Amino acid sequence: MIQFTKEDVKKLPKINRLNLINSATGYKSANLIGTKSKDGKSNVAIFSSVTHLGSDPALLGFILRPATVPRNSYSNMKETGYFTVNHVTEGLIAKAHQTSAAYDFGVSEFDITGLEEQYHDEIYEPFVAKSPVQLLCKYLSEYEIKENNCIHILASIERIFCEESLLNEDNWLQLDKGKVVTINGLDGYCLPKLIDRFEYARPNTETKSMLKNGS
Amino acid sequence: MIQFTKEDVKKLPKINRLNLINSATGYKSANLIGTKSKDGKSNVAIFSSVTHLGSDPALLGFILRPATVPRNSYSNMKETGYFTVNHVTEGLIAKAHQTSAAYDFGVSEFDITGLEEQYHDEIYEPFVAKSPVQLLCKYLSEYEIKENNCIHILASIERIFCEESLLNEDNWLQLDKGKVVTINGLDGYCLPKLIDRFEYARPNTETKSMLKNGS
Repeated sequence: MIQFTKEDVKKLPKINRLNLINSATGYKSANLIGTKSKDGKSNVAIFSSVTHLGSDPALLGFILRPATVPRNSYSNMKETGYFTVNHVTEGLIAKAHQTSAAYDFGVSEFDITGLEEQYHDEIYEPFVAKSPVQLLCKYLSEYEIKENNCIHILASIERIFCEESLLNEDNWLQLDKGKVVTINGLDGYCLPKLIDRFEYARPNTETKSMLKNGS
Repeated sequence: MIQFTKEDVKKLPKINRLNLINSATGYKSANLIGTKSKDGKSNVAIFSSVTHLGSDPALLGFILRPATVPRNSYSNMKETGYFTVNHVTEGLIAKAHQTSAAYDFGVSEFDITGLEEQYHDEIYEPFVAKSPVQLLCKYLSEYEIKENNCIHILASIERIFCEESLLNEDNWLQLDKGKVVTINGLDGYCLPKLIDRFEYARPNTETKSMLKNGS
């Protein structure tokens, strides 16, 4: 195996270091976060750090880089208290990636990238059309990560919208049926295929496939 | 689209709620965390919450459920200050999933599941053999998530071991070359294939593929 010490990593050119460290922790979730300011300007941005935190209550978290520059997503969700999380599909990757460009504050990436806003019921915040899993989330709190001044945002899941074709009998959402992607590093977009699903693991019991049993 | 309100989610049977909420945030990383107690007992457990937190310094985080019961991984990393993170491959999924069973405190999942310990240089902590990306991490701190009493563990990446075949010229690790998997929900294991890689996004510049340009 090839080895990188901490000193090797420090000596790498910046882009190489970003590539290595961003890909070294494994695959990441690919989500578009939609927000709208109080005066009606919508915003959408890609995030690869949305992580499940708990099911009862239903909570998720994600990481914001140091708040040294104004960030639309963050200021909007603080203003209104809400934001949306929308899974990125194979068909959306180029547009989704383009949202990571440093647009001027106040520019809507919906206008620029060709991603389309979608609205559900009375909800003020924009969802992303053609995304097969869409969540309405409520901003709850934030934890400053002192080690690098990032912010860990905590939110509750208030509403779930999903394409019927993804929903299994046991309420598991089979993401590959919606061509949901995962991110490798900063810029690699990958399409997963389900290979197996296992029953709840118990000591002294063999690992059982749910799929191969036909259940 | 099908819709679940917060009340709908609350009314679901527990397993269904876990399935829905765990799959609603997108794909998760699949990592085996290896530790060893001061008195030499090794331990390995699967985690799906390891997330990149920063590249300079190289930091990652992961979530531990409420520390109401003794947890080997946690107590070992607090004892020695270190742990390993090992990517799960297609060939390791059944053994990796079995580590999630509730074994008695002090039982080594290496002994039970057939996962093999691997050691590098003078490092005390066990890595997982056949894992193509392996990290040595140093425990830094923890943040209690007050909303559900989970713990967000922060750690620095001290050493990276990887198979040469995954490493691109620009230090990006192409995970599909190592058959690294991603997790869908609690128990679905999926194998991603790279579909595209994009250049750094800039305003007023079209999204450019790195692969289709041949670079």
